[in-house]
Amino acid sequence: MRQSKLFSKTSKNVPRDIQLQSHKLLYQAGFIRESVAGRYYFLPLGMRVRDKIISIVKEEMDRAGAQELITPVLHPLELWKETNRTNTTGFELMQVKDRRGADFALGGTAEEMMVDLVRKFQLSYKDLPFNIYQFGQKFRDEIRARGGLLRMREFIMKDAYSFHADAEDFKKEYENMRKTYKNIYKRLGLDTVIVEADNGYIGGDYCHEFVVESEAGESRFLKTSDNKYAAHEDVANFTHQDINQDEEIKEFQIIDQPEWVQNMKQLMEHYNEPKWRFLKNVVYKNRVSEEIIIATIRGDLEVNKVKLERALGMNELLEDASKEDLAKLGTKSGYVHSWGHKNCRYVGDESLRTVRNFIGGQKEETTDSINVNYGRDFEHEITADIAMAQDGFVSKDGQKLIESRGIEVGNIFQLGLHYSEKMNAKFIDQNGKEQYYYMGCYGFGIERTLTTILEKYHDEHGMMWPKAVAPFQVHLISLKENEKCDKIYQSLIDANIEVLYDDRDLRPGEKFGDSDLIGCPVRIVVSAKTLEQGMVEVKKRDSEKLEMVKLDELISFLKKL
Amino acid sequence: MRQSKLFSKTSKNVPRDIQLQSHKLLYQAGFIRESVAGRYYFLPLGMRVRDKIISIVKEEMDRAGAQELITPVLHPLELWKETNRTNTTGFELMQVKDRRGADFALGGTAEEMMVDLVRKFQLSYKDLPFNIYQFGQKFRDEIRARGGLLRMREFIMKDAYSFHADAEDFKKEYENMRKTYKNIYKRLGLDTVIVEADNGYIGGDYCHEFVVESEAGESRFLKTSDNKYAAHEDVANFTHQDINQDEEIKEFQIIDQPEWVQNMKQLMEHYNEPKWRFLKNVVYKNRVSEEIIIATIRGDLEVNKVKLERALGMNELLEDASKEDLAKLGTKSGYVHSWGHKNCRYVGDESLRTVRNFIGGQKEETTDSINVNYGRDFEHEITADIAMAQDGFVSKDGQKLIESRGIEVGNIFQLGLHYSEKMNAKFIDQNGKEQYYYMGCYGFGIERTLTTILEKYHDEHGMMWPKAVAPFQVHLISLKENEKCDKIYQSLIDANIEVLYDDRDLRPGEKFGDSDLIGCPVRIVVSAKTLEQGMVEVKKRDSEKLEMVKLDELISFLKKL
Repeated sequence: MRQSKLFSKTSKNVPRDIQLQSHKLLYQAGFIRESVAGRYYFLPLGMRVRDKIISIVKEEMDRAGAQELITPVLHPLELWKETNRTNTTGFELMQVKDRRGADFALGGTAEEMMVDLVRKFQLSYKDLPFNIYQFGQKFRDEIRARGGLLRMREFIMKDAYSFHADAEDFKKEYENMRKTYKNIYKRLGLDTVIVEADNGYIGGDYCHEFVVESEAGESRFLKTSDNKYAAHEDVANFTHQDINQDEEIKEFQIIDQPEWVQNMKQLMEHYNEPKWRFLKNVVYKNRVSEEIIIATIRGDLEVNKVKLERALGMNELLEDASKEDLAKLGTKSGYVHSWGHKNCRYVGDESLRTVRNFIGGQKEETTDSINVNYGRDFEHEITADIAMAQDGFVSKDGQKLIESRGIEVGNIFQLGLHYSEKMNAKFIDQNGKEQYYYMGCYGFGIERTLTTILEKYHDEHGMMWPKAVAPFQVHLISLKENEKCDKIYQSLIDANIEVLYDDRDLRPGEKFGDSDLIGCPVRIVVSAKTLEQGMVEVKKRDSEKLEMVKLDELISFLKKL
Repeated sequence: MRQSKLFSKTSKNVPRDIQLQSHKLLYQAGFIRESVAGRYYFLPLGMRVRDKIISIVKEEMDRAGAQELITPVLHPLELWKETNRTNTTGFELMQVKDRRGADFALGGTAEEMMVDLVRKFQLSYKDLPFNIYQFGQKFRDEIRARGGLLRMREFIMKDAYSFHADAEDFKKEYENMRKTYKNIYKRLGLDTVIVEADNGYIGGDYCHEFVVESEAGESRFLKTSDNKYAAHEDVANFTHQDINQDEEIKEFQIIDQPEWVQNMKQLMEHYNEPKWRFLKNVVYKNRVSEEIIIATIRGDLEVNKVKLERALGMNELLEDASKEDLAKLGTKSGYVHSWGHKNCRYVGDESLRTVRNFIGGQKEETTDSINVNYGRDFEHEITADIAMAQDGFVSKDGQKLIESRGIEVGNIFQLGLHYSEKMNAKFIDQNGKEQYYYMGCYGFGIERTLTTILEKYHDEHGMMWPKAVAPFQVHLISLKENEKCDKIYQSLIDANIEVLYDDRDLRPGEKFGDSDLIGCPVRIVVSAKTLEQGMVEVKKRDSEKLEMVKLDELISFLKKL
């Protein structure tokens, strides 16, 4: 490709709202442009990288025995009603009506479409298992798009769905996909941590995110240093170690407390006790039923809302309670009781069992309760692990948990019978009986992976693409030697080397700057000075070393790189 | 691919609403399934064909110097408002609102998106010309979807847009694209007729459809037998030959006419004159302004509404007038005058100048006018060619026009300054002045081309895919010899031959039937009988000849086919 003909330009300036480093580089190097927030054009250079990622994913999925197909982008809304997902999905579903009044969802994921397709066929156990996937356009009506390609409103997801006779068979495919994903990320130059995750409304034990550790990421997780355990904060287990179990259990008392003692800091000051000594109540509201939930937890811990929802058997329904909600309970912030409120439900964290003689639980303006013991003075109907795991906590097998953060670039999970039951999708088993399909599902974000690669592969001068996904392998730069360079360009093309040829009439500094910015793995500079000696200068993007290579050895030199 | 693992099954039955032969085959062979009318799943076999077509189009577009990119699927509706296309496009635009209230169009074509992208850059004449294209998901809210993949509501269009400094430069790219399209269709096994067409609201001289002649097609066009002229019925020119110019011009008269004479048939019977002797009036209404248009034409001709609209400088605005519309004019069907009605506009066809002494024009219950001469007795403000060309008419260069019909598989056309002016998209010319981009646009329907190939390449037993787009090159069929066949299968894979391997436990007849249905170019049958002699049976799908090939010569034999 001649750069003089390339559509898009490099740019020194970056719009001020662009924060993420990879986003800046994609803008500056002319790989993408925003249409409106969360929706992007991929320009020719960006397209090449995107397509290479897609090709690698396709190769590995095919090798793993999965089969590519494609569903329509508009999903009949009735299908989403069959599974009751029109309201309960985490992302808001975009909907559209056609001129005849038919309702459609703009696909967010394609479980319903795939199950609808499969139930159009009469299949038997002989046809199982199979894994079908697509590179499907996905829409998520995010309230806030962020970080360029990290959280888009419109993107390509490789979404795969496997169909099985039973859970045993599913587990094999789950393992197959786990390995396949590892291979894909390896080829893309990414180290991933496989993190246990929550699969919300589905439940089930098999749900993992593939996370690339990065400060830019939204996924917070806890891991052990031996890498044997890694879990998203929403599912991370830890040992609730006893704090003061040697302390003698004292008698429950209501005591006076100065009116100025209102918050945790003041409590700690007044009683000269650490945070864990105090009871803490956090109040939520079910946004559909409006039921109030009070979570009681040890004062040094935070509530994890997803864990709390799981304890209550719900998914993405809780929101923080408002002043008005507290008023309905007959209380206000800071004065919520750990027992006794009417018209609400209480959940206790397991940490309540690790402390003897809590302070708090029945705080009024000038009194509070002390020597409160869970199980003796109060006990909630539900006691569960609803606490946020923190760096330094102890894992279930006694190791220190390390907090980390990263970008979720893929996920694999068990769907079980969830969709096939709701959509009545069955196969015929060996005994001629109808059975529901047992399903798994495997997602992979293309654009997000692209930007993650760039988060890892860049320096202060620009992009540094790994060979497997570089837009071009070679950046050929002519320093006012286009005539001779044209021939070198052609010889590279003839040798099947992907080459971007900077044939523009610009100063060397600008050309070198653009070359570093675009980040092809190898740069070749053609100047009069070296040509005199029958040589060109070759430099790898990730090295400072300049090598002089004879023209007639250039191709073989490049092939060896 | 092992057929035992292939997702999708062949089917003997076809839903009754499937009419088109290619649609039947795509259903039966398990290449596609309908989601809802006009929206299809492409199953693994169909995907392979679709992707091969896309690859060929991409290769040829890239070779022609065009550059692939991609736009978001959702277009900000403001862009469509800038060009006033929210109401005036021929297809109804689907629209959707996001949760923050922003309006989007589901892309029907992408002129606005591409122009919006280009104007984000400050480009100069040095950056021109360029041609940018995408394989974009397109949505058309058709009232009626028909013929499977012929008229879909959701499909992939390769849409390309070229940007130029001026019309001269555009013409070069137009020719470049014309050749590129010809190459693409040739590689796909399709003979196309390049048909002059109407480009509606744009106007301009350069607009051609690529049409594959077929009874299944919706495009009616006229051509000469030397293939030098081919034009869509909406733009087809013909010679308006004089009919009776040797006749003496007679005096205009109002005469009595029996009341039973009401329609053309009765007029011909009463006067014993041919159709051309009579004046005919056809009434339309502008569906936006409600203005009434009366088209006057020679009795043996029909009005072409698109030609009429062009004569009036409008696009897709006319509809047939209703009884009520005629009543407002103070008349009724059969009694419309060729002159004199108020609150309406008249357009005359050029054929009015080819006849002396028309009958008609002022018909009342018991009278009519005779010896009516255009130019003497009445003449409309606009006289233009608004007549439908018919088989046997004479072309402008004196040849006979032949009526034909076909499937429009692509089109190329001049956009001129239409979009760049409306969207204020400019480049800097040599003199440092801002100029509007001069544009062209080039469409190619992927699924429609696929089904057209199949319309051409099938027989009563099934599909007969050309090599370039066949889902697999070879269909390897094991007749209870899977163990040995597994080895042959592996040897074909190792030789990079795409092979579908029927390893299923079925009767030979079913396997042969499926093989003919799926239509891979070459079938190999492996049976005990031939294996004894170290041979397999090879048959091309488009031939009856069976060839016995030695196993150790199989690969080289196949490579030569």
